[in-house]
Amino acid sequence: MSAAESQPGEATQNVTAAVLVIGDEILSGRTKDKNIGYIADFLTTIGIDLKEVRIVPDEEDEIVAALNALRARYDYLLTTGGIGPTHDDITADSVAKAFGVGISHHPEAVKLIEARVGKGNLNEARLRMARIPHGASLVINDVSGAPGFRIENVVVMAGVPAIMQSMLDAAAKDFRTGRKMLSVSIPLDVKEGDIADPLRAAQALYDDVLMGSYPKYADGKFSVDVVMRGRDMARIEEARASFLSALETAGTKGA
Amino acid sequence: MSAAESQPGEATQNVTAAVLVIGDEILSGRTKDKNIGYIADFLTTIGIDLKEVRIVPDEEDEIVAALNALRARYDYLLTTGGIGPTHDDITADSVAKAFGVGISHHPEAVKLIEARVGKGNLNEARLRMARIPHGASLVINDVSGAPGFRIENVVVMAGVPAIMQSMLDAAAKDFRTGRKMLSVSIPLDVKEGDIADPLRAAQALYDDVLMGSYPKYADGKFSVDVVMRGRDMARIEEARASFLSALETAGTKGA
Repeated sequence: MSAAESQPGEATQNVTAAVLVIGDEILSGRTKDKNIGYIADFLTTIGIDLKEVRIVPDEEDEIVAALNALRARYDYLLTTGGIGPTHDDITADSVAKAFGVGISHHPEAVKLIEARVGKGNLNEARLRMARIPHGASLVINDVSGAPGFRIENVVVMAGVPAIMQSMLDAAAKDFRTGRKMLSVSIPLDVKEGDIADPLRAAQALYDDVLMGSYPKYADGKFSVDVVMRGRDMARIEEARASFLSALETAGTKGA
Repeated sequence: MSAAESQPGEATQNVTAAVLVIGDEILSGRTKDKNIGYIADFLTTIGIDLKEVRIVPDEEDEIVAALNALRARYDYLLTTGGIGPTHDDITADSVAKAFGVGISHHPEAVKLIEARVGKGNLNEARLRMARIPHGASLVINDVSGAPGFRIENVVVMAGVPAIMQSMLDAAAKDFRTGRKMLSVSIPLDVKEGDIADPLRAAQALYDDVLMGSYPKYADGKFSVDVVMRGRDMARIEEARASFLSALETAGTKGA
């Protein structure tokens, strides 16, 4: 079933995903998101293409609108944030609203939280973390006890990176994956404008290899990484050789 | 005109913004975005509320759709990425398409780039960076020479952080700003579930102060920051006192 078993050239369909980050604290700058980059790496590694990310505030209408736009469009939607015990944690309710289902305390979630905090500390706020939309299955995490959940193609995870990562490991076991996107990176000690023409020529020859160039600026000096991506490493290697040969012909230093 | 001159209680309208990050390299995980958090801090500081962020791939239809959705909805839209010299840099063309205007080499932009790279190095690829949608004004940058631009309420900036920051400084001089969002942070050495009920009570009393709680997890231990935000510091301080007093009554340690 998984991409790892597929043969090169086999017509395995690509699998897509979006990420929805929920939280005023990211938009105000108070908290710097660490989840988007992590999830991007994770999905690329397992053969799922991350196609879009949105960050929205802790406002129900905004969350519901983004949930419905993204879950309809991509194979998976992963959300982070807004599933804690406080009044501003409204992700679970927003998901229930987006799906048009009820929400109530999930017995298994109550047990997981109780086991972690002790029966005496199971106050109303903590019980709030056990409110799960009807029809969802729990996504466990090893760090805090309080679970995330999955409903249809939407996986709802915590915002705290260590907890999110644990939930992603658990949820990803059930993900359908596609052929992995493979890539090579070609670091060049030149300015981007020096390689643009040979790169465009190489791209024209290899339309199954996505070529991008990513300028860097450090210590007052520019350099560039050319990245070639595709699902067939032999084609990527061919494209690389073609580009490097064109660079040499053009006499560009640093190639 | 600016928020800094407005008096407390004066009915200055809030000013909103969105950020659109353009680039396959962010979605693949290859490059970790450093601009969103920077722009969020910057806008908060000058009195503009960042309300939404989207990250989209280097695909014209996706960029145009996001541009049109976000520029219609917020006072400002800031974009990063996709204005370099290579074939995958399609932001300027996408902006022209979104606004339904033409695009051509802007004489002033050509001069800026030529001044930086020298006339002999002004190849076709570099000239591409001087292609500016009709009706846009240039947004200069001190780092690379190649300018960004502004058209109506949309500011188009580079993806390289040092260049983006220089462009943001230049563009922000013309921004209309609102009353600044002020905040206090209350670090508490307890789990989030211990403060949720008092926090909810405080929120109910102060509906003009936005209260959020942000759990942290480090070295196997949870703590939480309660953040109170609003446009009137006296009200925020009152709300903080009310919350801390409720915590003390509840006997929560760490308050």
